[in-house]
Amino acid sequence: MEYAIIAKYILSFHDNSPMVIENGTVLIDGTDIVGVGKDLNIDDAEVINFGNHILMPGLINTHTHAAMTLFRGYADDIPLDSWLNDHIWPMESKLSSEDVMNGAKVAAIEALLSGTTTINSMYWHPDAEARAFSEIGIRGMIGAPIISGINTVKTFEHIFSDWHGKNDDMTRVSINPHAPYTVTGDEYLQIHEYKNNFNQSSDIPINMHTHLAETKFEMEMIRKYNLENGSAISDDIKTSTEYLDSLDILDDKIIVAHAVECTDKDIKILAENKVGVSLNPISNLKLGNNISKVDQMYRAGVKLSLGTDGPASNNSMDMFETMKINSLLQKSVNNDPSRGKAFETLKMATYGASKVIGWNTGAIEVGKKADIILIDLNKPHLQPIFSHNSLISNLVYATKATDVSDVMVNGKWRVRNREIPEINLKNVYENLNKSVYRLIE
Amino acid sequence: MEYAIIAKYILSFHDNSPMVIENGTVLIDGTDIVGVGKDLNIDDAEVINFGNHILMPGLINTHTHAAMTLFRGYADDIPLDSWLNDHIWPMESKLSSEDVMNGAKVAAIEALLSGTTTINSMYWHPDAEARAFSEIGIRGMIGAPIISGINTVKTFEHIFSDWHGKNDDMTRVSINPHAPYTVTGDEYLQIHEYKNNFNQSSDIPINMHTHLAETKFEMEMIRKYNLENGSAISDDIKTSTEYLDSLDILDDKIIVAHAVECTDKDIKILAENKVGVSLNPISNLKLGNNISKVDQMYRAGVKLSLGTDGPASNNSMDMFETMKINSLLQKSVNNDPSRGKAFETLKMATYGASKVIGWNTGAIEVGKKADIILIDLNKPHLQPIFSHNSLISNLVYATKATDVSDVMVNGKWRVRNREIPEINLKNVYENLNKSVYRLIE
Repeated sequence: MEYAIIAKYILSFHDNSPMVIENGTVLIDGTDIVGVGKDLNIDDAEVINFGNHILMPGLINTHTHAAMTLFRGYADDIPLDSWLNDHIWPMESKLSSEDVMNGAKVAAIEALLSGTTTINSMYWHPDAEARAFSEIGIRGMIGAPIISGINTVKTFEHIFSDWHGKNDDMTRVSINPHAPYTVTGDEYLQIHEYKNNFNQSSDIPINMHTHLAETKFEMEMIRKYNLENGSAISDDIKTSTEYLDSLDILDDKIIVAHAVECTDKDIKILAENKVGVSLNPISNLKLGNNISKVDQMYRAGVKLSLGTDGPASNNSMDMFETMKINSLLQKSVNNDPSRGKAFETLKMATYGASKVIGWNTGAIEVGKKADIILIDLNKPHLQPIFSHNSLISNLVYATKATDVSDVMVNGKWRVRNREIPEINLKNVYENLNKSVYRLIE
Repeated sequence: MEYAIIAKYILSFHDNSPMVIENGTVLIDGTDIVGVGKDLNIDDAEVINFGNHILMPGLINTHTHAAMTLFRGYADDIPLDSWLNDHIWPMESKLSSEDVMNGAKVAAIEALLSGTTTINSMYWHPDAEARAFSEIGIRGMIGAPIISGINTVKTFEHIFSDWHGKNDDMTRVSINPHAPYTVTGDEYLQIHEYKNNFNQSSDIPINMHTHLAETKFEMEMIRKYNLENGSAISDDIKTSTEYLDSLDILDDKIIVAHAVECTDKDIKILAENKVGVSLNPISNLKLGNNISKVDQMYRAGVKLSLGTDGPASNNSMDMFETMKINSLLQKSVNNDPSRGKAFETLKMATYGASKVIGWNTGAIEVGKKADIILIDLNKPHLQPIFSHNSLISNLVYATKATDVSDVMVNGKWRVRNREIPEINLKNVYENLNKSVYRLIE
């Protein structure tokens, strides 16, 4: 089926700048964008004219643990050690595949309704997350964390054959060493080799997805962990980014989440190796960590994108909120309101993120997959709009996730006028709550 | 008319703790809350059962410049000097009373729809803001900034007689020396004297409302300003808070906005003098300033409340967003996730704010004015709720302003199911845009 979607503003990117077409049309054929402009032939298409809306690329959340909606609001406001050791990890040890399915469905619904069309989720029972995402209709990269002593690169091989590139390529699988303080250097090397071997024989490459440089204690933990587990680590390595670089595993098929504690040298390493970074500003604040040097990384040419992190450390999947906070923080930490420009952040959440995660989405242009959202501008908090700059300012600083009226993923409508047809939300919420009550018993 | 409002959770405060009544009822008679509990006599009342909602006090925004919706998204992301001197101030010099009315109406609508029932706004043409607020039906404190050479304490005397305590006491007027770098010490003393005289003969006291300690350059500016204008200032004064204290004008009828650059000594001064503080975390970030020591002030017993600041430096009036960011920032700056607890912030936005601003609102208890909001819990991002703690976590970390379904101010419904009856929103938005296009010409 072919759609011709008309909106007051079509927002995308051209080279390094925003591109706005007023009263433009986007043509969709199957899963693809096949036309963008003002005077297109729309004779054979179903025409949908949204009027006073922005049509733009769907947001891409490049780091989360989706099913952790299960633990939203659980044991907040307590020290990090106790939160993990006394609360989150004991609960996670009881998780069933069904619990993960119940949690991931709520996350996928929440994401879609807030304009996110792609999620990158690292979590247990990744097949349950894959099923949840495909049932709800969101594009998703899934994969369990690999942690020494718990599982290995081999544990999840069936997930690759069951899910990678399946579901019309809306589901992909990544290989996820949890973090350099829970996985030895030797294991990172095995995982890296597995990735390279896989990618030599696959049309659709896989990414490695790992946590990196989240806390200031991490390097100390890495050194201790490797020494205790008989993995060599040189004395002259000062940071976790230097450490991964020393393993020679950094390339353009690795997504590192957080990148908070980065030196100038680290930023250079990330840029030179074309590493994809997922910034998680809200989670970093909530867990009492520092603020990433986003402005500096942006200027150094690091491939940047944004993530919410898990709903237990945020506590939402709201990428609009994430965009606003990402820009605001850079102004304050640099004591300069001209840093963290709205457009830079908007690009991180869309076009930039598509370069990090690898799907052919993130822009409104011919040949891209049709992951599209519509923003309803008939809202008090989105008045006035008087220039393309003010449009982009409003998007990042004033738009609420709930201003998203309609969402299309891979050419298929998933949200129409803020409703998700075919999904019984009440059942989904009840199932989540049932899992939670069982887990906290 | 008497209402009996039933909701799954009634949320208020008891001493220093949250108080939650499950499946409780709140009785409203005229403008007042006359009953709160579980087994009330509701025979004569119109019963409204909201089911799966939270009923809680309306949020109180203790510092904004409401009509600056006019400049939302105007010249963002540029250095502060240029933003003020080349953009905002030249535009403000062209403002008509009608422009302010158009801007303030949008702000009031935006505030109501995001659960705010009281606004404290410092802006030009305060009578226009007063008219806008009363027409839309929000509780509001208004008053123009007093700036040396532009106006004096006498300029606005008619505003007091026209508006203070009027409109069923939903409108009050404050006296607003703009900031200690735009008003001399001598003028602060005159304004303080005016306030004291007024309050000796008025049942409803007035507040002084001023900016304080927003930027790190402020003390330097204050010294220069006073010396240039022939007002004495002692060499041993180190901060703007010490400076106002040296004038002996600090008391429990002054609201100071920002309080970012405060020393330990300043925090002690604010606490001892029972000064009301309006924290504006989002504006501080956006304008490239530092982060207030909220956690330290809270522990020192400073009277704390939250504000959005003007929509041009935020860019919204969203107090839910403000609450979340306020808590998050304290965790990061103190490197401790147990700081900035959700409940502390919730109290600042409601009960605490009522102590700052002076109306008898901010709690759900007998004898308070009926400023009440309802939060619809049937949302994916508000799942799960499994304890009263998780309820409060969800309120501060996960609730979106648009989850507010219904709003009552002073006993009167102003928002029903996210609609504002009797107001033609399209006209209001058009009028704002007309003003903006005229101003930017």
